[in-house]
Amino acid sequence: MLPILLLLLQLSLLSPSSAADFCVGDPSLPTSPLGTFSCKKESAVTATDFIFSGSLATPGNVSNLLKAAVSPAFSSQFPGLNGLGLSLARLDIDVDGVIPLHTHPAASELLLVTQGSILAGFISTSNAVYCETLNQGDLMVFPQGLLHFQVACGDSPAVALASFSSPSPGLQITSIALFGNSLPSELVEKVTFLDDAQVKKLKKVLGGTG
Amino acid sequence: MLPILLLLLQLSLLSPSSAADFCVGDPSLPTSPLGTFSCKKESAVTATDFIFSGSLATPGNVSNLLKAAVSPAFSSQFPGLNGLGLSLARLDIDVDGVIPLHTHPAASELLLVTQGSILAGFISTSNAVYCETLNQGDLMVFPQGLLHFQVACGDSPAVALASFSSPSPGLQITSIALFGNSLPSELVEKVTFLDDAQVKKLKKVLGGTG
Amino acid sequence: MLPILLLLLQLSLLSPSSAADFCVGDPSLPTSPLGTFSCKKESAVTATDFIFSGSLATPGNVSNLLKAAVSPAFSSQFPGLNGLGLSLARLDIDVDGVIPLHTHPAASELLLVTQGSILAGFISTSNAVYCETLNQGDLMVFPQGLLHFQVACGDSPAVALASFSSPSPGLQITSIALFGNSLPSELVEKVTFLDDAQVKKLKKVLGGTG
Amino acid sequence: MLPILLLLLQLSLLSPSSAADFCVGDPSLPTSPLGTFSCKKESAVTATDFIFSGSLATPGNVSNLLKAAVSPAFSSQFPGLNGLGLSLARLDIDVDGVIPLHTHPAASELLLVTQGSILAGFISTSNAVYCETLNQGDLMVFPQGLLHFQVACGDSPAVALASFSSPSPGLQITSIALFGNSLPSELVEKVTFLDDAQVKKLKKVLGGTG
Amino acid sequence: MLPILLLLLQLSLLSPSSAADFCVGDPSLPTSPLGTFSCKKESAVTATDFIFSGSLATPGNVSNLLKAAVSPAFSSQFPGLNGLGLSLARLDIDVDGVIPLHTHPAASELLLVTQGSILAGFISTSNAVYCETLNQGDLMVFPQGLLHFQVACGDSPAVALASFSSPSPGLQITSIALFGNSLPSELVEKVTFLDDAQVKKLKKVLGGTG
Amino acid sequence: MLPILLLLLQLSLLSPSSAADFCVGDPSLPTSPLGTFSCKKESAVTATDFIFSGSLATPGNVSNLLKAAVSPAFSSQFPGLNGLGLSLARLDIDVDGVIPLHTHPAASELLLVTQGSILAGFISTSNAVYCETLNQGDLMVFPQGLLHFQVACGDSPAVALASFSSPSPGLQITSIALFGNSLPSELVEKVTFLDDAQVKKLKKVLGGTG
Repeated sequence: MLPILLLLLQLSLLSPSSAADFCVGDPSLPTSPLGTFSCKKESAVTATDFIFSGSLATPGNVSNLLKAAVSPAFSSQFPGLNGLGLSLARLDIDVDGVIPLHTHPAASELLLVTQGSILAGFISTSNAVYCETLNQGDLMVFPQGLLHFQVACGDSPAVALASFSSPSPGLQITSIALFGNSLPSELVEKVTFLDDAQVKKLKKVLGGTG
Repeated sequence: MLPILLLLLQLSLLSPSSAADFCVGDPSLPTSPLGTFSCKKESAVTATDFIFSGSLATPGNVSNLLKAAVSPAFSSQFPGLNGLGLSLARLDIDVDGVIPLHTHPAASELLLVTQGSILAGFISTSNAVYCETLNQGDLMVFPQGLLHFQVACGDSPAVALASFSSPSPGLQITSIALFGNSLPSELVEKVTFLDDAQVKKLKKVLGGTG
Repeated sequence: MLPILLLLLQLSLLSPSSAADFCVGDPSLPTSPLGTFSCKKESAVTATDFIFSGSLATPGNVSNLLKAAVSPAFSSQFPGLNGLGLSLARLDIDVDGVIPLHTHPAASELLLVTQGSILAGFISTSNAVYCETLNQGDLMVFPQGLLHFQVACGDSPAVALASFSSPSPGLQITSIALFGNSLPSELVEKVTFLDDAQVKKLKKVLGGTG
Repeated sequence: MLPILLLLLQLSLLSPSSAADFCVGDPSLPTSPLGTFSCKKESAVTATDFIFSGSLATPGNVSNLLKAAVSPAFSSQFPGLNGLGLSLARLDIDVDGVIPLHTHPAASELLLVTQGSILAGFISTSNAVYCETLNQGDLMVFPQGLLHFQVACGDSPAVALASFSSPSPGLQITSIALFGNSLPSELVEKVTFLDDAQVKKLKKVLGGTG
Repeated sequence: MLPILLLLLQLSLLSPSSAADFCVGDPSLPTSPLGTFSCKKESAVTATDFIFSGSLATPGNVSNLLKAAVSPAFSSQFPGLNGLGLSLARLDIDVDGVIPLHTHPAASELLLVTQGSILAGFISTSNAVYCETLNQGDLMVFPQGLLHFQVACGDSPAVALASFSSPSPGLQITSIALFGNSLPSELVEKVTFLDDAQVKKLKKVLGGTG
Repeated sequence: MLPILLLLLQLSLLSPSSAADFCVGDPSLPTSPLGTFSCKKESAVTATDFIFSGSLATPGNVSNLLKAAVSPAFSSQFPGLNGLGLSLARLDIDVDGVIPLHTHPAASELLLVTQGSILAGFISTSNAVYCETLNQGDLMVFPQGLLHFQVACGDSPAVALASFSSPSPGLQITSIALFGNSLPSELVEKVTFLDDAQVKKLKKVLGGTG
């Protein structure tokens, strides 16, 4: 039996490192473009590195003014996704809740409504609006980098799963980018055509300065 | 007002085709590597091209010997995914059911258990086994091209969502590839070390010839 | 001499089609993801397919309310760029002019100020603002998919060249996406937190309906 | 003459690091996805880093039950290949020998028979079998991630060269993955439909436990 | 038995087109960047599409002034390679023969000497020379796009196999590019610093005009 | 107001590292293929990391025998470009000046003439010459890896901007690669068909040895 074992051992050793299979992210090591972690040593990798437990089963806390919550499983939360080209998040949107207008600079999104109804849409660079009401079991895809949104509709809370084409899709919420940082009001007004009063009002709400 | 409109029109026309945004697959046109459809003309694209309705909300039919079902939303079923780097499928696994050992040659998979419990695992090219019992809300990632499986455990049916890092992940079930086609029994035995009786028995079950 | 010629001919014929070199876009043929044209036959390709003449030397018409103009050389205007991973545009910004807040979903941008001064900035997904005044000869890079803007500063018109990491970078101007199409006002308000009066005012200015 | 030298020096210094040219792998530094090593400093790189000597000229040892041997030149053995998108291996298959059913998760394979005859085949995800007898000088291509095999035919030993589209193609031999590790027999039977006796017999042969 | 067959049929039908597996090039259909053919319909694909027969077993005709020959199996000759990321060529170099200085714009090359000895080298963008004598069984890798050459050494003919990281690597022989076309002599001299007499002499040898 | 802030904070924290946005190169950390730096920690990144000041506004020093100068802003000079897929350089070509025949192994180039006239051309792997006189405002694209050149024409100095599809395009000037290093004269002659006198003359001019 030994010879077969020896040969097979030799064959299986052709990939002495499983780096070709996976690259569990090690946040203590340098990153490289774009959002990619260096790999944990294979000898330290266990099955639990490929598991992310529990948080997507639990409804997010929607006791806030948006009446919505996002629970992500991106590579920052789940380093086993590093380099594997995909991630997931759970969306909870209460009655009247909203996931505000946003983009994912680094990923397309595929949304599955698992409970309730959601009005969702995106806007193309040709400025066309693609907008539909999604019911339980419906999917909608949002191409990479385009502005999109999800709004609860109907009389009961909605839940959805968003899958992404990157382990670190990024998330840029337009109103937070405009009103939630130090960008001077005058500049915001200049680049958006919004009124001064409107900008200052929202800066106050969203924590912006300047 | 006209000048602003004209300029903005000019700006928004910089992408006269939304081809840079999306490429809804048109199965009547030629394909290119790998699994990529040519694009439907943008003028014919509507919101419904980005929607896939209903089938993922409905439990698959598990009245079969595997006691399992797969309901895919790949680019073949949902051409709006073409070129966007992701897809989704629903898995239903009844008590004692099984998704047999398989690979996706063109995608990594991220599995979310939405109901029940599943024992899932994959095998690396270093021949290590990464195997865990997943409960509702748990995620497990299966790196591209590696053998993996999902088996129901517990006393109630399991449901899971599988997201993929490609719109056409491909699916190669090992036992079907071995026993469900015209590959001669003698050759199957030679390349797997299986016994002749075993191969012929499974060829009969799985519809293989030769 | 003939043998050398024959051999060399044979060697040079290893690429009987220059498709491996370039792929001049033919807009009459199908496109594929993302924004990619099929190739014009090589026998029909001439040097002029690789040339784009004149428009970037001429100042754009800034007699509009933005006091700015964009002159693109993307693959739609210049099919020779197809598949080659880059493009260029000229920006003219008069005194007090502005290139409004926008993203390029499919490309990073590298801006070179060739005349005057420009205040430019982008906002990261961590909501940090990176903003600087650029003088003649200064470069600033805007990573793919992030919100950014350019505003004239100083007492003289500014000119800049923007190079992109894609032949069809796409352009999504936030305020046009919000106010220049059929997205209902109520929905815009819901997903941005803007006031009804503000939304309706800008919809009127930017040609939006609903 | 100096000025020309100075200018040319300046020109040639535009790539002060040859990192843009190559990246000889340094196994002591972190890896990144997928199977990619960090680079040895260019100042330490010599011509020998790009050379791999001898082992592909020597027949592998086929004195084993498979009557076959694989001699790889992957990036683990030949770090100069790191990042360059290709690798090579030599196959020796004695009379009646076999390279068992396997996949390369990360690469396509192009096989050239340099001596003898080989029966080779692969199985597509549509479950079609593509199988042919290859003679000296014949090539066959095996698309990425698909199950394939090579079996000696004829009365003399066969030799072949396998080139790969990745420096670390990975190798997963189905029977070793099934029977050569700790995957419990019951689970193997469940996910393959194989009989208990068959599984246990091969586990014994191939060193599996459980 | 039927239910299992039905389920398995359903599973295997998830890839109704094998486009995700392979894309055998159909030269009658449009190409796309870079050097990529559209796919032959899967129903028309047979095992022979993945086979390239014979020409690499036969020595090339070295009865020419270079005393060398190249026999390619690129996607133009072997459409089954389309989209699969690799190709192969056979080099025959007689005593005193030479494969002149050249680049492959679209691929790295991995050379295996199968007979005789070859002096091979490449020049980096840092202008370093990496040059070695290769004996039978030795490998050398030439990074993408860099100038390199192979020269016979020793008293017997040499044979080598060159594998490439692209199905259409391209080939640009420097002296043919300089002297074998209509580039005016004066221009050649200007951009190379070569003497007028030298340029005109080689234009005559290599068939150049102007 | 707090709840909205908390939720939005949560949302914006989904990308706790901006690594998904950008990766400012840190030359003190390891590099990876090809020409890619590891990332500076985001907490240390400021707006100035995205700015490159001044050198492209200043004419290069053309007081040399080429009567030309290249001023690059590649990732080696401008680490903010790392991973973003583009770079820029300024060309100054005095009357009778020349940018000698060269390739960029890792990028396509898009040239914009901003002053004067330039005769530019490239040679395809089919050995076709694509050559044109470019005037102010004209663009020409040079596909990746192909030999090309730029020569001043007309009675006044020319200035151009070259944008590239990579942050480290690489630059290989043919005559420097041939005559400016230790490649032995005899070998140069063998692989180019140039005369011994010619080679030795240019080796002396360009600093070559051997």
